[in-house]
Order: sequence, then structure tokens, then C-alpha cells
Amino acid sequence: MNYNIGLDISGGDYAPAEIFKGAILAKKEFGQNITLIGLQSQIEEQARIHRIDLGDFTVVDAPETIEMADSPATAVRKKKRSSIAIGTTLLKEKKIDAFVSCGNTGAAVCAATLILGLIEGVERPGIAIVAPTQKGVALILDVGANIDPKPLQLLQYGVMAKIYSEAVLHKKNPTIGLLNIGEEETKGPDFLRGVHKLFSASSLNFTGNIEGKDIFKGNCDCIICDGFIGNITLKVIEGCAEVMGKLLLSSLQSNFIGRLGLFLAQNNLRAFKKKMSYSEYGGAPLLGVDGIVIIGHGRSDAFAVKNAVRVAIEELEHDINSKIKGQVNEICQDNRVREVLTA
Amino acid sequence: MNYNIGLDISGGDYAPAEIFKGAILAKKEFGQNITLIGLQSQIEEQARIHRIDLGDFTVVDAPETIEMADSPATAVRKKKRSSIAIGTTLLKEKKIDAFVSCGNTGAAVCAATLILGLIEGVERPGIAIVAPTQKGVALILDVGANIDPKPLQLLQYGVMAKIYSEAVLHKKNPTIGLLNIGEEETKGPDFLRGVHKLFSASSLNFTGNIEGKDIFKGNCDCIICDGFIGNITLKVIEGCAEVMGKLLLSSLQSNFIGRLGLFLAQNNLRAFKKKMSYSEYGGAPLLGVDGIVIIGHGRSDAFAVKNAVRVAIEELEHDINSKIKGQVNEICQDNRVREVLTA
Repeated sequence: MNYNIGLDISGGDYAPAEIFKGAILAKKEFGQNITLIGLQSQIEEQARIHRIDLGDFTVVDAPETIEMADSPATAVRKKKRSSIAIGTTLLKEKKIDAFVSCGNTGAAVCAATLILGLIEGVERPGIAIVAPTQKGVALILDVGANIDPKPLQLLQYGVMAKIYSEAVLHKKNPTIGLLNIGEEETKGPDFLRGVHKLFSASSLNFTGNIEGKDIFKGNCDCIICDGFIGNITLKVIEGCAEVMGKLLLSSLQSNFIGRLGLFLAQNNLRAFKKKMSYSEYGGAPLLGVDGIVIIGHGRSDAFAVKNAVRVAIEELEHDINSKIKGQVNEICQDNRVREVLTA
Repeated sequence: MNYNIGLDISGGDYAPAEIFKGAILAKKEFGQNITLIGLQSQIEEQARIHRIDLGDFTVVDAPETIEMADSPATAVRKKKRSSIAIGTTLLKEKKIDAFVSCGNTGAAVCAATLILGLIEGVERPGIAIVAPTQKGVALILDVGANIDPKPLQLLQYGVMAKIYSEAVLHKKNPTIGLLNIGEEETKGPDFLRGVHKLFSASSLNFTGNIEGKDIFKGNCDCIICDGFIGNITLKVIEGCAEVMGKLLLSSLQSNFIGRLGLFLAQNNLRAFKKKMSYSEYGGAPLLGVDGIVIIGHGRSDAFAVKNAVRVAIEELEHDINSKIKGQVNEICQDNRVREVLTA
């Protein structure tokens, strides 16, 4: 299939240069149409720098810019000519098939929810990330879209995580766990004990609570949590990995033998770093909105941008949103689930 | 000063062997009296194995055992002859000066709260851990004692964290941050926005919200959070560090050059691992209870046990609890704080 992927050139800490380079890499690797959305002058400047014929891309000027510090709701409402507002609108109008942005996450979620609306039956969108584990990868949902979810919304995250894991990550009957402070169903706040009952009543392959230390073991395919806990978890993982890497490096560099070991092991360390890097896994799919939106990390480099485009293409190829639409009500309106919800 | 430190020989994944070895190490290094509390037969067996004269220790028989899976409140109520109940009672009766347990954390918190009671003015106890950062260490409080705290209780954690950091970690005017999903005061759930106001009104050196990724940078001395978020954070850090270590090792071992690099760098890697290890930082002080209680990690080895005893001695030397008693009301009953609380 030939898709048209919209890419926000203005959003991200290393925009526009790294995003533009990511577009070139993606075009080369996937051969799909790429629509560059951002300040036209910046796009043209980047094309000159990289000696790229813009005829290979579609360019859409977005003269306004949403900054990282902007309030999401206000920015989306007021900056209608920003790359995020324009990109989401193009997606709504089916002029592009998916939209990738490394800009202000809140604004991207807000624009998608307001402009695209939600998939029929879904109450709230959620941001999913794919984290490396000892046995492959695990999906964590939600990592920041919904900091105060209702139990049913968490169950819907369970359904969306299952569908994504099956279709894009090729897992069969993926296991679903609830992030909590103990494995026993009596652990944690009252709210989560109720959610545990709801998941238990559903037809999902629910394996119970999962503790933070077990995320990385890879025994649980999908880890469900509210956006507050998920966002803290995501950032703790990032910070921990980054600082451990730095401390490891300085420990190795502290003497000659260590430096020699580092020199010899450099290829292995590079491969390891690549495996650990969020860049490798591309952007985070915003699940539940009626359109394919991928949220790239603010610090995305060209490689991460290319992989975010890959994630968008995979979602399109596997028609994720039709599957969500087909299953969310089937699973969440099941009699046993409804009994728990009304109890 | 000569202190008498009570040590729970029966609690912990590697009890009694590692705890007993930790007692020997602690006795040798610190020269304080150590009271071994646990199954007498086990203690005597360990003494035979290690050819230790039990005359150097005080031994108190505790014929009942609280298992890791026991419900804390029930276990403390029903197993009055368990090491945790007896140790806490000895502390209450001032027959020992501090109590160290690597057993069931919930039971240790519950026993301390019920038997010792809280320091005058303190509403809830909190478990503090010391985490390695790029610039030294940071204190995180609470990591699991209180999963549903009131704003005032979090402010009290701020006060206790400040006092501990000053006295034991030798930090001057330590900075206090609130764990949240963004730095801006408008970020996160309503509850935390209210807590932000409370901290801002207090005389603490409050530097605002701190994100999960910044814990390890070392710019914030004390990180305050509820016990649910704190426990998830703690376990994510543990899991992340453990799996990163394993993946790094397998990456290095995957080819000859990598193995050679690993061989050369082994001393540096060992030093790095030591720096990252919770064993190095010993047990987690349970702050707010009227007595010195240190909660060791369930997986504590002898080295971690020895360091948990060190933490107990440091708390005694710096008379932490008198300082908490002296400052908690002064800071939390301040006029500006009360204005925010009653607003």
C-alpha cells in the first residue's frame, strides 16, 4: 500500500534539522509519501542544506508554532495555523493517513481528541510506549494522556493494548497486567482493587498485578496504568537508564585498564545502547483517537523520527483502529464486566 | 556512645544465614552491642556454622515467624512472639536502642506504629530510601508506608526528609522537590497542585516539582511523594538497574572482543555495581515512629545488613527523632502553612 504520512517539522527539541533528516531517512527506507508540515521557510532551508528536491515530498506551510511550554488546550484553540493543528486537520480530512509529531505532547493529544474525535465506544485516548525487556518488549499504556481515569477507561486501555500487541508486536493472546505495588489482588489503593475485579471479569488474558521491578522481566506483554503513574514510570526508566549509562562510562574511564576494556567493548556497548534507546522503538502511538497519531519523544533524533514513521505505517498496515472499534465494546460491554461495573 | 542494636534474624529472603553474617560484620566494624532476635535454634545453628561465641551477642528467642506473604496487621496482632513484634516491643521498653528488620515491610511498619506510636505531631510514618545520583545521593520519602496521604502528611515528610538529609547525609539547607509529571506548578492531579501550594507556603527549601527523569541528576536532595508512587518508583529503579545490568553483561559476552573487554573492565564494573547497589546504602529508615526502626531490603545480603545497622547507628548518633519532634510542629503549624491548609 502507498500511504501518506504527515510529519510535524516544527515540533521537538531538535526541530527542524533532525526531523527533516528523519523524513529523508524514512522516505528512503519506506518509500511512502511524506507530507512535511511546518514553517515553509525552515523546510526550504533544510532542503537546501541537505540538497534535497522538495518535489519528492508534499510541503504544507504552518506559520504558527506551538512551543513546548505552551498550555495544550489554549495552544490548540488559538494557534490554528500551527503544525499540530494543521496536521491533525489534514488527517481528519483524509489528506494524510497518519500524523507524526515530536512537539508538545499535550497539544498533540488535545488536537487529536478535539479534531479527530475518539473511536466509537472509546472514552479516553491513551499514549502507549514499547519498552525493552529481558525477553523482547512490553507495551505500557497509558503514559500520560489521562491522569485520572475511570475503571472502564483502564479496561479499554487493556483492550487497546491487547490489539496493538497482537497486530503490531505480533504477540499471541498477550498477557495483561495492572501496575501496582504488590502482586496480590488486595494490594494498592481501593481504586485499583476495583479495577483488578473488572479486569478479572473480562475476557482479556489478565494475569493480575505487576510490580515495577517486573516490567523489564518480559513476563507481561501489556502493562496498564493511569497516565500519572505511567508518566512517572516512563521518566524514571529514562532517567535511570541515562544516568546509569553515564556513571558506567565514567567508572570505565577512571583508569587505563577500564579505558582499554571500554575500547574493546565499544561495539557491544553501542549495540546495547541501541537496544535500550527509545529511538529504536520510534514514537508512542496515541491509541483511541479516530486516526493514526504517533507522538515522538521531544528529544527525537533523525533515527527516532524515522522509526516513528515506521510505527505509523505499521499501524496503518494492521488497521489498528478498525480492530479497536470492533473489539472495544464487545469486551467492555460483556455481561460479566457490566455486572462488576454496576456492583 | 555504646548502643544496643536489635537485629531480626528471621526476616528476609536470605534469613537466617545472611542476616547472621551481617551481624558478625556489623559487630566487627562498629563494635556496638547487637541483640539477635529470632528462632533460638536457628541462631545457635548459625553460631556453630560460623564458629561464633554467642556470648558476644545478646540472644532473644522469637519462636513465631511472620512470612513475607502474611497480612501485616493480622500478623502483628496474632504473632506476638514473632521477631518483629518482640524486637519492636524491646525497643519500646528501651531494652534496645534501634531495631533492624529485613522481614515483611508492612508488618514492620504496622508493629512500629502500633507498639511505638508516632513522634508527637507526626500524623503518619514514612519509609525513606537513599538513591544514588550523578552528584551523590537523594532521599525519596515515602516509598510505601502511606499510599493515601493527606497534604499535611506530605509536608511532614518534607520536614522529616530535610532533618534526615541535614543530620545523616550532611547536606546544608537541603532542597525539597515534589515528584510530579511536569515541573510547572499547574501540572499533575489537583491533589498535588494543592500540595505544591502548601510546600511553597512553608519555610522548607522547596524547589518545586521534580520529574522522574531528574531524580538521578542529583539537583534535588529530597524527593517527596505518596507511598504508592514512591513504591512504584523504587521498584522501577530496581528492576531497570537489574535488567540493564543483565542485558549489558549478555551484550558483552556475545563475542570474544566483548568478553576480553569485560575481563579487563571487571574491576571498574564491580565498583560501578557497588555504587548502584542498594546494599551499599543499607536499610530504609522508617521515619516518624517514636523509635529508630530500619527496614532492610527483603533481598539483603550480609553486606546490606551491616549497612542497615550502620544507618541505625547514624540515626542514633544524630538523635534524629528529637530533631523531628522539635521541628515538625514549628514548620507545619506555621501561620502561612495554616492559611493554605484552611483555605
